[in-house]
Amino acid sequence: MIKILVDAMGGDNAPSVTVQGSVEALANDKELHLILTGRQAEIEAELSKFKYDKSRLEIVDCPDVIDMNDIPTEAIKRKQSSLIAAYWMLKKQDDIAALVTAGSTGATIVGGQLILGRIRGIKRPALCPAIPNSRGGVTLLCDCGANAECRPEMLCQFALLASAYAEVGFGIKTPKVGLLTNGTEEHKGDPLHQETYKYLSQMNGINFIGNIEGRDIMMGDCDVAVADGFSGNIALKSMEGCGKLVLGVMKKEFSSSLSSKIGYLFMRKAIGRMRGQLDFDKVGGALLLGLKKVVIKSHGSSKAATIAASIANAAAIYRGGLIQAVENKLEGVDWK
Amino acid sequence: MIKILVDAMGGDNAPSVTVQGSVEALANDKELHLILTGRQAEIEAELSKFKYDKSRLEIVDCPDVIDMNDIPTEAIKRKQSSLIAAYWMLKKQDDIAALVTAGSTGATIVGGQLILGRIRGIKRPALCPAIPNSRGGVTLLCDCGANAECRPEMLCQFALLASAYAEVGFGIKTPKVGLLTNGTEEHKGDPLHQETYKYLSQMNGINFIGNIEGRDIMMGDCDVAVADGFSGNIALKSMEGCGKLVLGVMKKEFSSSLSSKIGYLFMRKAIGRMRGQLDFDKVGGALLLGLKKVVIKSHGSSKAATIAASIANAAAIYRGGLIQAVENKLEGVDWK
Repeated sequence: MIKILVDAMGGDNAPSVTVQGSVEALANDKELHLILTGRQAEIEAELSKFKYDKSRLEIVDCPDVIDMNDIPTEAIKRKQSSLIAAYWMLKKQDDIAALVTAGSTGATIVGGQLILGRIRGIKRPALCPAIPNSRGGVTLLCDCGANAECRPEMLCQFALLASAYAEVGFGIKTPKVGLLTNGTEEHKGDPLHQETYKYLSQMNGINFIGNIEGRDIMMGDCDVAVADGFSGNIALKSMEGCGKLVLGVMKKEFSSSLSSKIGYLFMRKAIGRMRGQLDFDKVGGALLLGLKKVVIKSHGSSKAATIAASIANAAAIYRGGLIQAVENKLEGVDWK
Repeated sequence: MIKILVDAMGGDNAPSVTVQGSVEALANDKELHLILTGRQAEIEAELSKFKYDKSRLEIVDCPDVIDMNDIPTEAIKRKQSSLIAAYWMLKKQDDIAALVTAGSTGATIVGGQLILGRIRGIKRPALCPAIPNSRGGVTLLCDCGANAECRPEMLCQFALLASAYAEVGFGIKTPKVGLLTNGTEEHKGDPLHQETYKYLSQMNGINFIGNIEGRDIMMGDCDVAVADGFSGNIALKSMEGCGKLVLGVMKKEFSSSLSSKIGYLFMRKAIGRMRGQLDFDKVGGALLLGLKKVVIKSHGSSKAATIAASIANAAAIYRGGLIQAVENKLEGVDWK
């Protein structure tokens, strides 16, 4: 049995999609036990629409909700919110494995640092989504927004954290690590990235292949793309914007004429697979790496299927022993 | 008559595509006069394949070539290269309007600064490509790689330069300017971007709409996206990588089954338009803004059509009076 917390009130369409996603996840994994935090009456109203195994789902009533306009450091003092209550339970109850939230990114990061806490030796947690790549696999982008300002040792730790995630979460052996800069040559980038390059070249426990450019993320030339949170966020959202444009154009063009509509009937499957390749949420949210337990931040606009995928992802990462893998890797490195 | 220099030896497939592109550009614009710099014998061999108006094309023989492995500051001392010879002519001959090159980005920037020179008052030139957006127009991304390290006043000048380009090159009145950061809120970003935000908010001559995220570039929520060259480059290449993945998947999926192949026959036009929407080169290269004359850097992998588009773009920008427009805008700003 794996116990996972779900912040039922987090995200644009909560609690309807969080509840539906939870029910789907429960059906897909008989080992799962879910604890939903949030407004009990609203959650129960949503739950009443579905059949599910009631013995594996419990609700913890939290009257308060954090929204996108709250200041994270203030918001986490309000212990009655669904996210903060979940963090306290995650910290205090040894039998709970993970937390999934589609709520405020800022509050998720701050709560992770201040309530749950970091793995010993880790300086900062980092957000790490899995980006679909042209090899049909994923490239882990770490950090993509938790740390707008970084120092070289932080980027080195991101490399280590994401390498452990690649191994445990995706079964990639000795994952290839690239440093995201503005060119592939060694001297590229600003002083932060030039210095980081030197450290990464000498570091144990990772397989550093050198600098990479933005296009290499989706081309899949490496398994882990290490980035400061500022440019990592810009990379992620630039790719999302491009994907969104493509899906929009597809929708428009494929119904633009009778001929296109007929063509669409023949190509439905192929187009469906194309859409799948651009679905940034298919692997289920971004892992908040570096914390003492597994925390997954799902997109604010997550659908039920995304929430279900995030929960399944959290379970898989827990089963794979992520935290232990990170601790093992940390032991091998002399941080000086 | 507009005289434009073409670096015939620049790019991966020079001089064949540069010569073919030049011939196409000549045919499309009867006012154009082109000067091709490079190895005369090779250029003549390529030219012999085409019919063109010989009175409007001349060749300046340059035996030397700069390649991607040359160190820019060293390479520009070799005055016999096609790019450097072109820069000297551009500087010295008042009747030459512009330069188009698909050669080394580094040498193009260094040559622009050290030979041609900057517009009075401009601190650094910036590379500015036009990105296709979901409104069917373009978003200008400035800087996308000329300056890995920036100060706030440089970013403010990029805003001004790209605004002039948007007005002159694309007829956009009071173009909307966004600052590319890791979130839309005012306090987002590192100290560089937080400080830049303050300056942009108070600046004359631009229409600042606030911070934007990576996805807003292709969504087209602004006309000008101001970026430091490091993260601007990452944004550009991340979008290119996504576009490349989509085109690759399309190619594969649309021939994956008999049904898909039949569908393709019906959808050919729609798919062609989709491809067009992802074609980053359709407007013809990135403008190197801030120099005393119009310089366009076309992709190293440019095809003949891209070179032709870059030449046409250079002519249009010259006709629009870009340099004068920049100087006018500069006069209105108190740089303190």
